[in-house]
Amino acid sequence: MTGLKKQVLEANLELVRQRLVIYTWGNASGIDRERGLVVIKPSGVSYDTLTEDDMVVLDLDGKVVEGHLKPSSDTPTHLALYKAFPQIGGIVHTHSTYATAWAQAGKDLPCLGTTHADYFHGPVPCTESLSAEQVRGQYELETGNAIIRRFESLNPQFTPGVLVKNHGPFTWGASPALAAYHARVLEEVAQMAFLTLQINPSATGDPLLEEKHFFRKHGPGATYGQ
Amino acid sequence: MTGLKKQVLEANLELVRQRLVIYTWGNASGIDRERGLVVIKPSGVSYDTLTEDDMVVLDLDGKVVEGHLKPSSDTPTHLALYKAFPQIGGIVHTHSTYATAWAQAGKDLPCLGTTHADYFHGPVPCTESLSAEQVRGQYELETGNAIIRRFESLNPQFTPGVLVKNHGPFTWGASPALAAYHARVLEEVAQMAFLTLQINPSATGDPLLEEKHFFRKHGPGATYGQ
Amino acid sequence: MTGLKKQVLEANLELVRQRLVIYTWGNASGIDRERGLVVIKPSGVSYDTLTEDDMVVLDLDGKVVEGHLKPSSDTPTHLALYKAFPQIGGIVHTHSTYATAWAQAGKDLPCLGTTHADYFHGPVPCTESLSAEQVRGQYELETGNAIIRRFESLNPQFTPGVLVKNHGPFTWGASPALAAYHARVLEEVAQMAFLTLQINPSATGDPLLEEKHFFRKHGPGATYGQ
Amino acid sequence: MTGLKKQVLEANLELVRQRLVIYTWGNASGIDRERGLVVIKPSGVSYDTLTEDDMVVLDLDGKVVEGHLKPSSDTPTHLALYKAFPQIGGIVHTHSTYATAWAQAGKDLPCLGTTHADYFHGPVPCTESLSAEQVRGQYELETGNAIIRRFESLNPQFTPGVLVKNHGPFTWGASPALAAYHARVLEEVAQMAFLTLQINPSATGDPLLEEKHFFRKHGPGATYGQ
Repeated sequence: MTGLKKQVLEANLELVRQRLVIYTWGNASGIDRERGLVVIKPSGVSYDTLTEDDMVVLDLDGKVVEGHLKPSSDTPTHLALYKAFPQIGGIVHTHSTYATAWAQAGKDLPCLGTTHADYFHGPVPCTESLSAEQVRGQYELETGNAIIRRFESLNPQFTPGVLVKNHGPFTWGASPALAAYHARVLEEVAQMAFLTLQINPSATGDPLLEEKHFFRKHGPGATYGQ
Repeated sequence: MTGLKKQVLEANLELVRQRLVIYTWGNASGIDRERGLVVIKPSGVSYDTLTEDDMVVLDLDGKVVEGHLKPSSDTPTHLALYKAFPQIGGIVHTHSTYATAWAQAGKDLPCLGTTHADYFHGPVPCTESLSAEQVRGQYELETGNAIIRRFESLNPQFTPGVLVKNHGPFTWGASPALAAYHARVLEEVAQMAFLTLQINPSATGDPLLEEKHFFRKHGPGATYGQ
Repeated sequence: MTGLKKQVLEANLELVRQRLVIYTWGNASGIDRERGLVVIKPSGVSYDTLTEDDMVVLDLDGKVVEGHLKPSSDTPTHLALYKAFPQIGGIVHTHSTYATAWAQAGKDLPCLGTTHADYFHGPVPCTESLSAEQVRGQYELETGNAIIRRFESLNPQFTPGVLVKNHGPFTWGASPALAAYHARVLEEVAQMAFLTLQINPSATGDPLLEEKHFFRKHGPGATYGQ
Repeated sequence: MTGLKKQVLEANLELVRQRLVIYTWGNASGIDRERGLVVIKPSGVSYDTLTEDDMVVLDLDGKVVEGHLKPSSDTPTHLALYKAFPQIGGIVHTHSTYATAWAQAGKDLPCLGTTHADYFHGPVPCTESLSAEQVRGQYELETGNAIIRRFESLNPQFTPGVLVKNHGPFTWGASPALAAYHARVLEEVAQMAFLTLQINPSATGDPLLEEKHFFRKHGPGATYGQ
């Protein structure tokens, strides 16, 4: 699991470099689909001293198979998403400022331009509140379930992120690095959308233009890049 | 007092690194409960040149017992808090931008999500204005008294910070380092709450979720970290 | 084309240094008017590894005459502008935060002070939305055409930038370096205008003062600089 | 004039370090009151290459007595202020983001807390607009005159700064370094006031508290510092 541990460590450190996390906030994970094993950041450990050896390896039932530290408290959320979204290879959770503000506002992040549309197809959805039973029960698992419910009619490959209400964003991608990349993009478009609606409260996106941009970069007709 | 002086110096320098203070603004202190001695930053000295030797040691009556410089002008506020809140080991005062804006707005900082709830149980309260007599009298002591009055029905360990109206934040913790840590968290959640209410003026917290998060990290049932 | 390739590479890297782009966002180009050749950033290549050799050289019909990589997907927009605005020597496109917010808001950026007026004569205009045919057809070319239509009664030398609706800013200048310079100025004045109208929604510019400032720096009566 | 040239160079470079200016924006100057000579930044020269030798020395009538470059275009404003405010030793002009936004909004910057009151006694005033004759005439001199008119009933030592309407801030102090220091403080309190009024549009200062803070640091009863 050396390769994946290194990828997951790197994705975690990228969150610090991109100023998406402070202290021990946030976490990144990755999955080896062939072996059915997940690598995740340990709980409450500082990024400054984090090493590959600190990474925790679990199976999809949450049983630790390697590592000397407790896994992130958000592990059950990650595992639920890996099981529900079989195409994804990495997950990131942050409390980045603007994305968290939208999550606290309890609003879907609207697609208002091509910056957003280059990465997210349509709004980045916000989950429903959990019930008392869900919060008091297996809370972190129920957070994953709330995300999965919200994606019942959405494609997680086309919308690689979500806002968990009153909490913060989760993003994902084909790899831990892409999950971190989407976390950075989400923070940027969350700031842009905040500013846009301050400047013009009735601003709207341009669905046609956004379709064009999304499919310029995604799917069989993509033309962007080398 | 070498160990505590070093801790207090470090907490002061951390305020600069976290961009919570500029120039000579702000101050951090710590207390040795066994000896009843407080170590605090000297008044109006630049962080660039601050050394352990510059730290001022006082007893709880404000008598300087060690040090060649005048203590911070806010010393009587710190001493009042150490006397009223026997569980705390360090105090920090800053003029960090967003927390100060809330203090100037004269509003309690509402708890709108888990980022806040991971550290502060309920709103971070804002003090009442001082009376003319209090401002003209022992002003810095009266600032401490206003904080203490505001905490009559609050637990300072569960709410490790306050907004002093028209002034700025004070935070505290079990050590000077934790007081500085709470100052950084307060600035972050103050920015998030500002943004949240701009996006959705009727946004509210989710008390159940916030209880869950606070007690995941605090008290006998805590599960977070190693 | 070595000299121009170096200028274009430098202008691209300046966008990163000035924090106007992240990842592979944005692009800068330059033109050799005598040879009728344009140098532009390749599509989707990271700024971290970008070299002079990666630059793509094209003629004004879009035929690649030198380079081993695909040119920026926005190349047809650049070429249309070089053909329509014969005085300009460099073009920059970014998704910088505040300028993009104004573009997403669909509003001309008003001139509210001398900072803006030192560089842009009057508002920085926002284009009209493209029609379905334009988006589905030669989209990047049509983006250029929308800019050109918006400048029918404007002087591109006096207004060296535009906001493309629901997309982001393009700026230009006598050289690639000046196009990048105008991108940075545009981001700054876009932030200032946002803040100004938040502070005072009925704030307006002072046309007389703005004329004075613009012509202090531009045209035959300029007195600024050495 | 070596000592003063060095001070003025340092004050100019401090504006860059404090992120108050970009490119060639802004300028700092200082005065030798005994000799009646002013040292100021040259016009339109980049801060990156600025040296002591580039500084321009003028008498109070604006005659250059030393230096090989043209002085800042804002020189007549500086000279007018040095003549009208005999107590000041340095002047700084920036286009810092938040202070400029308040100047563009055409509003006095209200004193909403102790951060402001520690340096500025009462609001930082905004000038009136210039008349057509003033703009078309000796514009930079008239800018100085507008500031001086605004200070008819104000003490420039107690209010070491001003917002020039639709333009930006000027600050001053006993030395070029203190003028730069006040430019940084002004930017900070301009941001805080913006945020405060967004959070609570009816927020007000606490005049009693502000008097206390101002005179804790200024005048014969000052107790702050060593």
